[in-house]
Amino acid sequence: MTIFSKIINGEIPSYKISEDDRFLAFLDVQPLVLGHVLVIPKVEVNKLFDLDDEYLSAILAFAKPIAHAIEKSIPCKRCGLSVIGLEVPHAHLHLVPINTADDLNFTRHKLLVSEAEMLRVQKLIVENIEG
Amino acid sequence: MTIFSKIINGEIPSYKISEDDRFLAFLDVQPLVLGHVLVIPKVEVNKLFDLDDEYLSAILAFAKPIAHAIEKSIPCKRCGLSVIGLEVPHAHLHLVPINTADDLNFTRHKLLVSEAEMLRVQKLIVENIEG
Repeated sequence: MTIFSKIINGEIPSYKISEDDRFLAFLDVQPLVLGHVLVIPKVEVNKLFDLDDEYLSAILAFAKPIAHAIEKSIPCKRCGLSVIGLEVPHAHLHLVPINTADDLNFTRHKLLVSEAEMLRVQKLIVENIEG
Repeated sequence: MTIFSKIINGEIPSYKISEDDRFLAFLDVQPLVLGHVLVIPKVEVNKLFDLDDEYLSAILAFAKPIAHAIEKSIPCKRCGLSVIGLEVPHAHLHLVPINTADDLNFTRHKLLVSEAEMLRVQKLIVENIEG
């Protein structure tokens, strides 16, 4: 079982942002920048494009209100998006508030963020999700 | 009119990979690595998440056979995906064959590729598209 499946079933806690029957979104605990969110399908597939067309199609519509909430919560030019997936064999999409291309550079040093700060960012994004 | 709209209407030539009524895919002329493809909506919107839900949902299903063709054409661990969009105000999705996270690092030096090499890569990916 992947670490993300353990987050889905509650074995590992997470700073949850949003959830429906197919997807879960939560704060990345090693963020590139504050407000970095992971979106994962609840089904355990290795690569994003392994999802069937219907499931795959739904992920961006699920991510859209989260991306807008990130843009409202964190000072940034826009919310960027990346799928890399070389470390955890469970498809995941990164939503990251960016001001420069370097904010979406995964070779960068990740941030260490206090629990209080993670809770503050989680609350802020959740409150800014519309509809 | 954005440079991408000029590519869509044929004013600016491109190494086309795939097309339907809503999307166009072509080789990025300043690739991070060989096989780097751009997917754009034919409607001119600045940010990907400005697309309405139905249009937005369709882009990954359109990109999926291209991503699989890239993985068949270029030696790589998988096809990565990024949306940054700080330079051209016309939503675009990058599909990039990656072996490390640095292959999807947009602060890297872009490649200069000869026309012959671009044509070879274009042909290879197009031939590997299934369905």
